[in-house]
Amino acid sequence: MATDFQPSGVITLTTDFGHKGPFVATMKGVMLSRLADARIIDITHETDVHFPAEAGFWLSRAYPYFPDGTTHVAVVDPGVGTQRDIIAVLYAGHAFLAPDNGLLASIAERDEARVYRLDLSDPARLGLGEISATFHGRDVFAPIAAAIAGGLLKPEELGPVVDTVVPSWVEEPIVQRERIAGVVVTVDNFGNLISNISEEQVNQLADPVVKAGGRDIALRRTYGNVSPGDYLALINSFGVLEVARAEQSAAEGLGLGRGAPILLVRGAR
Amino acid sequence: MATDFQPSGVITLTTDFGHKGPFVATMKGVMLSRLADARIIDITHETDVHFPAEAGFWLSRAYPYFPDGTTHVAVVDPGVGTQRDIIAVLYAGHAFLAPDNGLLASIAERDEARVYRLDLSDPARLGLGEISATFHGRDVFAPIAAAIAGGLLKPEELGPVVDTVVPSWVEEPIVQRERIAGVVVTVDNFGNLISNISEEQVNQLADPVVKAGGRDIALRRTYGNVSPGDYLALINSFGVLEVARAEQSAAEGLGLGRGAPILLVRGAR
Amino acid sequence: MATDFQPSGVITLTTDFGHKGPFVATMKGVMLSRLADARIIDITHETDVHFPAEAGFWLSRAYPYFPDGTTHVAVVDPGVGTQRDIIAVLYAGHAFLAPDNGLLASIAERDEARVYRLDLSDPARLGLGEISATFHGRDVFAPIAAAIAGGLLKPEELGPVVDTVVPSWVEEPIVQRERIAGVVVTVDNFGNLISNISEEQVNQLADPVVKAGGRDIALRRTYGNVSPGDYLALINSFGVLEVARAEQSAAEGLGLGRGAPILLVRGAR
Repeated sequence: MATDFQPSGVITLTTDFGHKGPFVATMKGVMLSRLADARIIDITHETDVHFPAEAGFWLSRAYPYFPDGTTHVAVVDPGVGTQRDIIAVLYAGHAFLAPDNGLLASIAERDEARVYRLDLSDPARLGLGEISATFHGRDVFAPIAAAIAGGLLKPEELGPVVDTVVPSWVEEPIVQRERIAGVVVTVDNFGNLISNISEEQVNQLADPVVKAGGRDIALRRTYGNVSPGDYLALINSFGVLEVARAEQSAAEGLGLGRGAPILLVRGAR
Repeated sequence: MATDFQPSGVITLTTDFGHKGPFVATMKGVMLSRLADARIIDITHETDVHFPAEAGFWLSRAYPYFPDGTTHVAVVDPGVGTQRDIIAVLYAGHAFLAPDNGLLASIAERDEARVYRLDLSDPARLGLGEISATFHGRDVFAPIAAAIAGGLLKPEELGPVVDTVVPSWVEEPIVQRERIAGVVVTVDNFGNLISNISEEQVNQLADPVVKAGGRDIALRRTYGNVSPGDYLALINSFGVLEVARAEQSAAEGLGLGRGAPILLVRGAR
Repeated sequence: MATDFQPSGVITLTTDFGHKGPFVATMKGVMLSRLADARIIDITHETDVHFPAEAGFWLSRAYPYFPDGTTHVAVVDPGVGTQRDIIAVLYAGHAFLAPDNGLLASIAERDEARVYRLDLSDPARLGLGEISATFHGRDVFAPIAAAIAGGLLKPEELGPVVDTVVPSWVEEPIVQRERIAGVVVTVDNFGNLISNISEEQVNQLADPVVKAGGRDIALRRTYGNVSPGDYLALINSFGVLEVARAEQSAAEGLGLGRGAPILLVRGAR
């Protein structure tokens, strides 16, 4: 399955570049220069800067909603210009390209994933021009992604297969018999606190209750199930536990953000 | 006219999702999965959260600038997962899809508009997969919009025609003989205060003067007609009254924002 | 070379409109109405408002990364609706369209550039409809750009050739024998301070040291060459001097922003 990648011409972009300046745009310009009919979709450019784990968290949960054969590029790259590697991962009919800094770890570590390490010893071989020291997104990732998305380069031509990758900066939750200890990975536009605790883990506990910010918060199905201003926890649409506040910001209300502990315990009822 | 909808393959998106996380992007991925050559344009994802009226205000004024046959999707949906309906409106050769929460009221209430209520009793009939409780944008709106934009579903196949919709959260201005009382609906990136008072309403008053934030503000044609720092009122490019400050932010200068009263009175001259 | 413009159907957009409201979107809608298969790329909509120099700075450095034949539209236009001109510049196989307010000066002043002044005396001649007083981006720039990008209008049909344009609001650095005095033009999403001092100018000084915010800052190759928290200067990927702080914000750390002086002096070693 891993090698069954048929490029569709669709490319997604995930970065911490924000929307100031031409950084994302020049990546797209390079892509269009190499693949004129590339269809490029922005996943987000507002992940926390220098924090590859958030980009990886979202990408690993968002990719299934894109067409088979999509090429996903993620550039959160505090080590740009140093000796860090770049990897390509094939999994489930999708291709992923990112620095080897943990961003892709959760996908690369899956059983059927195949991982290649980009061999940049001969850039011309890959159709690359001059490579700046500080913007591999534009000079390496973009042209490689366009070539892969257009079938001009096969992933196996990028470099050798590798067995291990740098692990994610966010650890998995600690699962015990009657409690699961996770953390907030990111906060969305509504102030919802999004954790690393999966639906499967939640389902292991009977009548689970969330403890966050000094409160006991009940698990519900959707935001409208409580009154405006009330806190609730739910399994969100990406399959992870989220702490929310109906029509308000849970992050502001609880004073919590990225890295805050989210505890799930077995309820008393 | 209302039924004369010939899908063009163009889809617009208006949400309150912001740009953090993969929320908008997964909607686009789903659209491309169902309609590979969809041309998707973001209207805005920065409307005030949980405030459908702003999204509806802009959408009702922006749609004429898109090609005939455009499918417009607007998801500001605090009631997601509860019993609120989803409606499709056909008007002037465009199709609109949104929760029935007032967002589309100003279009749906026009004489030649036709309104359908989405019948979700058999999701497979509409080509839908699993529907989450918290993200109908991705699981319902996106695939339906792609099907409509690609001519795979006709609007009349979505469900029954309905006669009434939930009204808008922002009321129309109160028009009296010598004064019109409106409100600020939204503030743009320049700090301009954009009201719900239409050009037609302004034209009903002789020599109108705007009263806002304790000031009398004269009506002008464009920003450059006054000196930097001066306040002015004008009919903006979307046909509504706007209070501005040349090269500065009227919102900051006057301390006004969404919901602030804007009064238009007959002038003394 | 200047006249060798073969439109590719690619259009870029650079504005100070931000992401609130339908301003950028209606420009795209108008473009698609006139050129159904336009491929539109956002460069940025978050330049400082009312400051054409930042838009011009980025556009002049970003355009080479787009395909030959790209049409670049930049609308930072505090003088909209007044007598300011609109110009089109052809240079190096690209076309540029902007208000004549200094935004395009650095490109227009190059030897092989050709500059046209848009003649709006007969809007119908250019296929334009009604022109609002406050939004030429939508009513003039967008339809003209689409026509140029699609080969429906040739740049020489826009109006007369002109020899001089309004100069940029940011002056060139002052270059002396042992020091170069520049300024911060913009700050990126990482808090990097991006100056107007070019790589060529830096190379004129032996062992250069940057003085900014009361500190002496050494020139390095990339962010990872110093420890997190340390300041560094580098030639960035767009060929200008940048002051950065590894994994942190130099702008916050030094308390500097747009317009701050950046001094480059010959080092002592």
